Amino acid sequence: MPQKPIEFIAVDWGTTNARAYALDGGGTVLDRRETSLGIRNVADGRFAEAFETLVGCWRTPGPVPVLMSGMIGSRQGWVETAYLDCPADPVAVAQGLGAVPGQQNVAIVPGVCLPAGSAHRDVMRGEEVQCFGALEMSGAGDAVICLPGTHSKWVDMSGGALVRFATSMTGEAFSAMRDHSILGALMPATTSPSWEAGSSFATGVERSGDTGGLLHHLFSVRADGLFDVVPADGLADYLSGILIGHEVREMARMFEPDGAVLVVGGGSLTARYASAFEMLGLSMQAVDAERATIAGLTAIRRLAADPA
Amino acid sequence: MPQKPIEFIAVDWGTTNARAYALDGGGTVLDRRETSLGIRNVADGRFAEAFETLVGCWRTPGPVPVLMSGMIGSRQGWVETAYLDCPADPVAVAQGLGAVPGQQNVAIVPGVCLPAGSAHRDVMRGEEVQCFGALEMSGAGDAVICLPGTHSKWVDMSGGALVRFATSMTGEAFSAMRDHSILGALMPATTSPSWEAGSSFATGVERSGDTGGLLHHLFSVRADGLFDVVPADGLADYLSGILIGHEVREMARMFEPDGAVLVVGGGSLTARYASAFEMLGLSMQAVDAERATIAGLTAIRRLAADPA
Repeated sequence: MPQKPIEFIAVDWGTTNARAYALDGGGTVLDRRETSLGIRNVADGRFAEAFETLVGCWRTPGPVPVLMSGMIGSRQGWVETAYLDCPADPVAVAQGLGAVPGQQNVAIVPGVCLPAGSAHRDVMRGEEVQCFGALEMSGAGDAVICLPGTHSKWVDMSGGALVRFATSMTGEAFSAMRDHSILGALMPATTSPSWEAGSSFATGVERSGDTGGLLHHLFSVRADGLFDVVPADGLADYLSGILIGHEVREMARMFEPDGAVLVVGGGSLTARYASAFEMLGLSMQAVDAERATIAGLTAIRRLAADPA
Repeated sequence: MPQKPIEFIAVDWGTTNARAYALDGGGTVLDRRETSLGIRNVADGRFAEAFETLVGCWRTPGPVPVLMSGMIGSRQGWVETAYLDCPADPVAVAQGLGAVPGQQNVAIVPGVCLPAGSAHRDVMRGEEVQCFGALEMSGAGDAVICLPGTHSKWVDMSGGALVRFATSMTGEAFSAMRDHSILGALMPATTSPSWEAGSSFATGVERSGDTGGLLHHLFSVRADGLFDVVPADGLADYLSGILIGHEVREMARMFEPDGAVLVVGGGSLTARYASAFEMLGLSMQAVDAERATIAGLTAIRRLAADPA
């Protein structure tokens, strides 16, 4: 256990994983915990038990305040919280917290949606917190933010508020096409992923700009693989480049960033996006996803405690 | 057994199914047989047995000539035949037939590919026969042909030859996203498919013309479903409309048809394409896939028997 007292616990509780951070009064991370207790992996609604496993040992001295974001607030989660309409700012989010019955000082942030009356709807849970945190970390009031992932989000932030966003199924389409279509048949079981200039990933990003559209480019993973235009051990990277290339081209057209896009993430996925951004002549600034989550939840807690 | 003598047997042998047609000297179909003996369902390379099951009873009087097209000529099939480079005409295909060892009067047509040196490669097996047949049936020498399916093909025919084509993974993307992504979660087990004006299919075709690209439009199957913008029992049709809408828009841009597109198929899939074509202001003419296959194989056989 850490020496300094834990004053706040920030939790990012998603579909697959749950991550918790124990913070002191100055916002320093004293301890962290990551588990596979995502909501999909919690049986029979036993969230109280999972919560105890996740943060119980940090709360033995007393009910340290906990603020949680992500799918834990969905209908399939512990307590369903509302979707706030865009535009949404941290004050609105702080006012929309949902308390968890039977737990002292434990709350879940609401999600954010495009409002009724929009041509189409869209939803997020958890990314809104990262957007507020990333914007604060960048020191700007306006930005376009990209959050790569299973369901990648691009977000328009203006005057500190989340005004508009769009989701792309990039990560999930990659898994579905690799694991459940003919495209996986030519891919070896293990490869050395690469996303540098000259890699098959880069070939895929280029391919995404050709005529014919995504459904056609996807088939070139098979056809170019059959004729060794792309080597077998590069086919997964090629598929990744085609998909990420399509997302970044389309979203850049939709959001028209006039400065560096804040890319919230970490590790190799951010590196892939950085490579695609560079190839497409777009400017980006990487923001660590964990730090953005902590900054966002901390800011929301501050506003909830002191709504002035 | 039919009364008139069988003079020719045409076989469309694909991945999932095998279809065989017994024809008299005038090209009339005397008998037909459809089985699930696609090459994927033939264990341990026992193609000779499957062939006997499929057409054996038609060949008891003697070794009636058989011509086969489709994946039976692939590396995973019975005898691998070459891919002919585009442009390819029926004469070239007739000269490239592969005989089946141990079988009298049984041959398999070659596939067709975009040649080495093309920016990207593409391949077909079986559709080339349908294209030659559809063109002959239409009475034209030039046409753009669309063959909807798991791997939809759009083909440029000029002077009777197949000069260029592109494959889109429309059907396979539909299955992968419905069965192996979050998009299926909101879809009821049974629905009443619809593709008329005003249906969710039509909403999907419209959606495919919005900004944001296919990866974004796919997510609207979830988001618009969550908020009942699209009813649950229309979500599969909505997904279908988004995918077919993307294919048709992109391929029409790539192939720039200046007359009616020949759509080779049948049943509800052709009806979906007809609906999308109408919504997008494109002209089409439906061609029955079975008749196109028979016409194509008959023409190739005639050229092989009489190469003058």
